[in-house]
Amino acid sequence: MSPTQNVLFIMCDQLRFDYLSCAGHPTLRTPNIDALAARGVRFDRAYAQSPICGPSRMSTYTGRYMRSHGSTQNGVPLRVGEPTLGDHLAEIGVRNVLVGKTHMVADRAGLARLGIDPASEIGVRAAQCGFEPYERDDGLHPDGGYDPAPAYDAYLRAQGFEAENPWEYWANSAEGAQGETLNGWLLVHGDKPARVPAEHSETAYTTSRAIEFIEGAAAAGEPWCLHLSFIKPHWPYIAPAPYHALYGPADVKPAVRSDAERAETAHPIFRAFQQERYAQSFAREEVRQRVIPAYMGLIAQIDDELGRLMRFLDDKGLRDSTLIVFTADHGDYLGDHWLGEKQLFHDVSAKVPLIVVDPAPAADATRGTVSRDLVELIDLAPTFLDWFGAAPKPHVLEGHSLLPLTRASAAGPLRAHAVSEYDYAVDGVRRRLGTQVRDCRLVMITDGRFKLITAPGFRPILFDLDTDPGELTDLGADPAQAETIARLTAALLDWYRGAANRITVSDGWFSDGDAAAEVYDLLLDPGILIGYWDEAELDAEIHKRAAWRAAPQKG
Amino acid sequence: MSPTQNVLFIMCDQLRFDYLSCAGHPTLRTPNIDALAARGVRFDRAYAQSPICGPSRMSTYTGRYMRSHGSTQNGVPLRVGEPTLGDHLAEIGVRNVLVGKTHMVADRAGLARLGIDPASEIGVRAAQCGFEPYERDDGLHPDGGYDPAPAYDAYLRAQGFEAENPWEYWANSAEGAQGETLNGWLLVHGDKPARVPAEHSETAYTTSRAIEFIEGAAAAGEPWCLHLSFIKPHWPYIAPAPYHALYGPADVKPAVRSDAERAETAHPIFRAFQQERYAQSFAREEVRQRVIPAYMGLIAQIDDELGRLMRFLDDKGLRDSTLIVFTADHGDYLGDHWLGEKQLFHDVSAKVPLIVVDPAPAADATRGTVSRDLVELIDLAPTFLDWFGAAPKPHVLEGHSLLPLTRASAAGPLRAHAVSEYDYAVDGVRRRLGTQVRDCRLVMITDGRFKLITAPGFRPILFDLDTDPGELTDLGADPAQAETIARLTAALLDWYRGAANRITVSDGWFSDGDAAAEVYDLLLDPGILIGYWDEAELDAEIHKRAAWRAAPQKG
Repeated sequence: MSPTQNVLFIMCDQLRFDYLSCAGHPTLRTPNIDALAARGVRFDRAYAQSPICGPSRMSTYTGRYMRSHGSTQNGVPLRVGEPTLGDHLAEIGVRNVLVGKTHMVADRAGLARLGIDPASEIGVRAAQCGFEPYERDDGLHPDGGYDPAPAYDAYLRAQGFEAENPWEYWANSAEGAQGETLNGWLLVHGDKPARVPAEHSETAYTTSRAIEFIEGAAAAGEPWCLHLSFIKPHWPYIAPAPYHALYGPADVKPAVRSDAERAETAHPIFRAFQQERYAQSFAREEVRQRVIPAYMGLIAQIDDELGRLMRFLDDKGLRDSTLIVFTADHGDYLGDHWLGEKQLFHDVSAKVPLIVVDPAPAADATRGTVSRDLVELIDLAPTFLDWFGAAPKPHVLEGHSLLPLTRASAAGPLRAHAVSEYDYAVDGVRRRLGTQVRDCRLVMITDGRFKLITAPGFRPILFDLDTDPGELTDLGADPAQAETIARLTAALLDWYRGAANRITVSDGWFSDGDAAAEVYDLLLDPGILIGYWDEAELDAEIHKRAAWRAAPQKG
Repeated sequence: MSPTQNVLFIMCDQLRFDYLSCAGHPTLRTPNIDALAARGVRFDRAYAQSPICGPSRMSTYTGRYMRSHGSTQNGVPLRVGEPTLGDHLAEIGVRNVLVGKTHMVADRAGLARLGIDPASEIGVRAAQCGFEPYERDDGLHPDGGYDPAPAYDAYLRAQGFEAENPWEYWANSAEGAQGETLNGWLLVHGDKPARVPAEHSETAYTTSRAIEFIEGAAAAGEPWCLHLSFIKPHWPYIAPAPYHALYGPADVKPAVRSDAERAETAHPIFRAFQQERYAQSFAREEVRQRVIPAYMGLIAQIDDELGRLMRFLDDKGLRDSTLIVFTADHGDYLGDHWLGEKQLFHDVSAKVPLIVVDPAPAADATRGTVSRDLVELIDLAPTFLDWFGAAPKPHVLEGHSLLPLTRASAAGPLRAHAVSEYDYAVDGVRRRLGTQVRDCRLVMITDGRFKLITAPGFRPILFDLDTDPGELTDLGADPAQAETIARLTAALLDWYRGAANRITVSDGWFSDGDAAAEVYDLLLDPGILIGYWDEAELDAEIHKRAAWRAAPQKG
């Protein structure tokens, strides 16, 4: 590994795959993100391992499916000892640094059980999901809870933006005609500018902090993996000027939805999610027209800030040594399918934008291309390790490096199926349906054409993405689809069975001795003699071992 | 919990369910174990979670399936942080003490990654699978490897049994006519006595150490859970006098096997296991007749030692305060089905003896009965916690307390299916079949009548235990069984989906607030306002909360 190799891992929060101009949005302009796509590969079928922040991020940061890491919902601590990208990078001497959001909750009970001081270096890494928290900010600081003293509040105060709660007063509120505070959480205020000037907003601040980190690390000459993790365009949906007004109702794409989706024949879980407050709100056209322009403005601001960051990287001469990834943790229904938020598995929620800029000359042939390979966010950790030259760890990391795709050197598809999971135990949906907590586990599996969603106690949901790219027709109850459902169900069982649960030893632990084992009983070495009848039989085997040890292949 | 409550958890190694007189063995006499059965409940359908030492024990000691704890084979370290019975008992102030074998291998890499000193109290517990190792002895100390200075060797030396390797020379060798050492590992010597006198053999020594522990703990008045874990009747199959000669070839039950099991139509994995050395040996009648009497002698010795232990408990007045469990980690083919050892899922391998003596008066009605309930070794940890009065932890412990069965208070069956797993990556079978390491995962699921064994890349195996209790007819390729196979396969998917992977929070974490959540949006409390259109809508919800807080149900 060259000491000048780095990774810049950019993640947005709740950014839909189709809200980029390079991904076909009709009016949104994202020239800097488009430029990344032109320099790299844009993956058009990238799935989040869970369509919600915490579990999706825990999968991304561990390289493991939710079924394996067990942090099944926002707020559920990641179990202590679960190996993270940071653990793997630490082994090869690369710093894994955070600027922004992770949604990680420390497993304080587990740390206590193991006697680990949360303030120690190891304790911090375990508590921060493997990151060195150069700047940890999960982006929500309402009066009711969360971090009592976020660094961003201190920054705002230092800039003269005083308030009891600067985050709420300046960055997430607008101002009325009489100077009154207009609550930025409320969707009705989506068309107004946040009080904070754009250059001091969270997106700008986070970008500046990333630049500060890179400046220092570049000066020190150390390799780094920087996770620049924007809080936006996640709610509160309120953008600072001029971004609040860049787009208007005319830029709002028609909602993708049908009356059949609200009919009594629709799937009970789907219908129950439609009854959530956010779904009821986004089902209203008035809400969409007020909020979606703000959402677009927040994306445009991220794009501008990324332009600033890319110019900085170029100025520093880091372009050729830095692998850049741009993605999101999940999407946003924005009223499609009569839903808001995320949680379910339509592409607008579970599919994410993903651009990989691989500066290696071997990747020149793929620059500016769009890949239709089925890829997953758990592929990022193996990609980074591959970039730094580390050996793969398939017994721990359940994804695959994307570099064979950027370098057009893959022998075949990375995988036959992508999987995403969601646990609705936390949602009103559970109470509405009377489901037991343990039965709230939804699993989606797709082969790229069909998408099957399974739910204990309910019939499956099935979409045919080829004939129905809008996912408006649920084929889960169609007898003609029984074979497809059985095929994907069998694939799901294979997926469960293939879980990387044996994380303490590699596959090589079993197979490294195969050549010798073809010749003699390896248990002779520790003296464990199983099934030998008599001395003659044992001696014969000992002679085979001696012959093996004397043979040239030994050395 | 009364401070006088205790658990005596006795485990034999490789003891078949049917090698007890109370379980119907025609000539073997086990009066002391039979007496336990008469005092308690004998479970006739108890399954080990893996038919091999290490994984079976890791499941028993964690209360979790192999798919969850990930220690898939002997020698594979149990990942640090995996919660154990010892962790749960520590929370309620009960010592979890080991005398004998666990087969635990510490996750040294994991301990190092988390900065845990393996010599610290927490480090020892993590390294010893949750046990306080009063006496840890895994029972195999050949010259080739393992512990360089077992306590049992020191004991033998102190008794005057000197040798370079006392364990091997005295306890696991016989002596020839000329005084020469006859290797006790070799099956041909199964009919000879071990050099060591019975009262200084491993079984007697282990029992004495248990008595010493109980003596001290009883004097201190502290509650304890003692795992008395015998190494026998596991190989080396050599018993001290007089146990070597208690039984002879006439006591050897005919092998249960058929020619069809060796035919080319037999399942490839089954056939490949038949080619292992131990299987080839035990397929020979000469071997069975030499070894099985020794195996029976080792069991008879355990029975005698348990008689001594039970008299001690009675003398100490501990009978009424001690829950006693007698079981094994798996069985032994002993030539049945042309196999030796264990690994596969016929009842002689995967089913285990299980007796639970519950001294509570509530259990009087079930004393001396035989239960046909489907139970599993993962039920023991929840049973012990229940006995000590601890709350159940279904989000971590995947088994169920057996006390509702001993007390005849269960509302219904504990479970509809039992599951056992085996990873044959370590076996010659893998190389013989050319299977990839990752595809060596066998899973057995049974509903008590049918037993389905699934193997990636191969057709399933199916037995009907009602019509074919000897498991001689594999129905896995029978088209008439397609529906049964589909039904059990669906149950297997449910089993995978229901894994207790979310170990950091309980189900109550999701549902404790349900009554309030019926009334108002609980996210108001931390100030997270999702989907509200305007101030009026928000105010309405805030009023609902105020009403809830003022209502009498609040207090």
